[in-house]
Amino acid sequence: MTGAPITLADVRALDASDSLARFREQFDLPDGIVYLDGNSLGALPRATPARIAGVVEQQWGQSLIRSWNDHDWIGAPARIGDKIASLMGAEAGEVIASDSTSVNLFKLLAALVGLYPERSDIVTETGNFPTDLHIAEGIAELFGKRLVAVATEVLPDAVGADTAALVLSHVHYRSAYRHDMRAVTAHARHAGARVIWDLSHSIGAVPLDLHADGAELAIGCGYKYLNGGPGAPAFLYVTHDLQQRMVSPIRGWMGHAAPFAFRDRYTPAPGIERFLAGTPPVLGLAGLEAGVDLMLEADQHALFDKAQRMFELFAALMADRCPEFRLVSPGRAEERGSHISFAHSQAPAIMNALIARGVIGDFRAPDVVRFGLTPLYLRYRDIWDAVDALACIMADGSWRAPEHARLGRVT
Amino acid sequence: MTGAPITLADVRALDASDSLARFREQFDLPDGIVYLDGNSLGALPRATPARIAGVVEQQWGQSLIRSWNDHDWIGAPARIGDKIASLMGAEAGEVIASDSTSVNLFKLLAALVGLYPERSDIVTETGNFPTDLHIAEGIAELFGKRLVAVATEVLPDAVGADTAALVLSHVHYRSAYRHDMRAVTAHARHAGARVIWDLSHSIGAVPLDLHADGAELAIGCGYKYLNGGPGAPAFLYVTHDLQQRMVSPIRGWMGHAAPFAFRDRYTPAPGIERFLAGTPPVLGLAGLEAGVDLMLEADQHALFDKAQRMFELFAALMADRCPEFRLVSPGRAEERGSHISFAHSQAPAIMNALIARGVIGDFRAPDVVRFGLTPLYLRYRDIWDAVDALACIMADGSWRAPEHARLGRVT
Repeated sequence: MTGAPITLADVRALDASDSLARFREQFDLPDGIVYLDGNSLGALPRATPARIAGVVEQQWGQSLIRSWNDHDWIGAPARIGDKIASLMGAEAGEVIASDSTSVNLFKLLAALVGLYPERSDIVTETGNFPTDLHIAEGIAELFGKRLVAVATEVLPDAVGADTAALVLSHVHYRSAYRHDMRAVTAHARHAGARVIWDLSHSIGAVPLDLHADGAELAIGCGYKYLNGGPGAPAFLYVTHDLQQRMVSPIRGWMGHAAPFAFRDRYTPAPGIERFLAGTPPVLGLAGLEAGVDLMLEADQHALFDKAQRMFELFAALMADRCPEFRLVSPGRAEERGSHISFAHSQAPAIMNALIARGVIGDFRAPDVVRFGLTPLYLRYRDIWDAVDALACIMADGSWRAPEHARLGRVT
Repeated sequence: MTGAPITLADVRALDASDSLARFREQFDLPDGIVYLDGNSLGALPRATPARIAGVVEQQWGQSLIRSWNDHDWIGAPARIGDKIASLMGAEAGEVIASDSTSVNLFKLLAALVGLYPERSDIVTETGNFPTDLHIAEGIAELFGKRLVAVATEVLPDAVGADTAALVLSHVHYRSAYRHDMRAVTAHARHAGARVIWDLSHSIGAVPLDLHADGAELAIGCGYKYLNGGPGAPAFLYVTHDLQQRMVSPIRGWMGHAAPFAFRDRYTPAPGIERFLAGTPPVLGLAGLEAGVDLMLEADQHALFDKAQRMFELFAALMADRCPEFRLVSPGRAEERGSHISFAHSQAPAIMNALIARGVIGDFRAPDVVRFGLTPLYLRYRDIWDAVDALACIMADGSWRAPEHARLGRVT
């Protein structure tokens, strides 16, 4: 980017030299829509409908109960977990696909505080994604611990001899601020505490190397950058070294060492399967696996490089054409994830007007418009079109129309 | 049934007069298979593939994130819950579809013991379905309670002033023994305790009237008689009177009174939604709703009448042709559910041989062959064919073939 205004020709040149451009064809994207919401719900991979239909019509319909063995439904949580592990610098046998992000955090945080009976504190950030805060608050009450929620700037000071666990979003859902995983983990370990990383806005979006960064525990979401489908199963990660010491509070039969022996007493499975609870959600897992399989084809560093170029393009175009919006995402690439957010006092109506024009992003309370930069299927041209639509809405005042004033239940 | 041996003509006459026969056409059943495993995984309704494909291709693929509003994904757990409520004598707003049976039991049992800080005991049966026992054992440890697991016969004596909660399967997964819901609930309430009923083998199988029976809390499974698909979301029930007093230990964002206000502090939703945790599993819910919609078309009493006739036919044919099997299900209809089980010392090999012949039932450790009687899609002729196949296997000794000796991981 130079100081001169960016032109459409510049943007076309970026698309022409995009090494990831071929992936867009692997997605079924609706005509006339610029979809900048992959960080809330990833788009539909073209391979997914047939994969799910095969599970429904052939595996369920024709093979019926035999598919637990014949089509390895029983192995799906660990199989998909191994694939996700390879996206994040974890080893096979350290990740499992299961439940929701909320339930997975509950399981890991309860197991973790169980390791620290003498330590009183669960530390997190104010303004963290609400479900992380709520789950941690519930665990604190259940175990008689104290929830210490502090601003990001003073987080290091809050971690000390009383800290059992830190619960942090690696990439913040609103601002895209990204923690230094290695530094924060080292700081916590120095204090004798451990971190659970929420990778919901990281996995498939920023390069991850959990082993290199010393991270031992993590959870994450399947329906954002992994393109696993609405409400896709989530995942959890426990490093091999810790697995034997941690027991899920939710002792479901699928976490048993021998689920089909139908024994009265619970014996946790030796490996990561001990964190399973109920019967695996086979349809959801099929969608998740299709999304993960596609993600495995892309180089994670190339993805993040493209996301950064998209971010810079978005920021530059906004500074040029919509200067009334304030960038709230970090300027430095190593401090952010793969979305870009701007503050504006009229954010809800503006986002509604933008969606009505076919550019889909998110409003996030109280005043943020947020755009997911999903390099697997977005073109630079989409960024141009999005800012162009936003500039038009602001110029012609159409965001002031009464129909844009209402707040949707979900955006 | 008369004393004379039952003939194929008798069985054909039963099918000819079956008022539920038309439902079989609503299912996609494989040729050459007698499927007696609807109590492990119900068959595929013909309407389901198109319903799921519509959610995947249209709602996810084309409407993307907007479907949370436009296709009411956000309302699915409560909408499907209301439909399930109408199958079990509960009111709208008392049931919600969510998570797995295991996780739902965890949520309800933790919330229930929270109501009884002064009572020490969680009471259940030995030999209850393992996940119920394991979850209860985990809750007991977490809350410093005592798990009292006793034989069914002495259950009434185990319930007293120390009892906080009873956890019981309404219909037993192995024997099909059915508790008298009204009597057990009254006995527990008399002692000041409450019961959580596991309806996994009841819903869609036996007539249920939870309000009439005084039942206040229940959980259940979506993939058995409701034909919701493999690993379908489960459900939970909390009577209106108790909802305000019970808070889920898993405080996920979807259980918040205002999930999209993104507030740091947790405020539980006023109604049954407070028992939601993470983002709803949209694909699984679509399959569950299709199954439930079909079940709603059938009269629950007519279903159970047919199941009873099937049970009697099965028992009579077995007594006649396979007398070496011992019936372990209750003889009286009011004491059982909708499956039939027999003990035999060589049960695993026999069931493997039967499945190889195209008759699918379950082996359940240590010595039980179990057959689900699913009146929605089974013919009386299927019972005849199943017993005929079993008699042949026993007569020709083919069950002794080496390939039938191994135990599958899942059956």
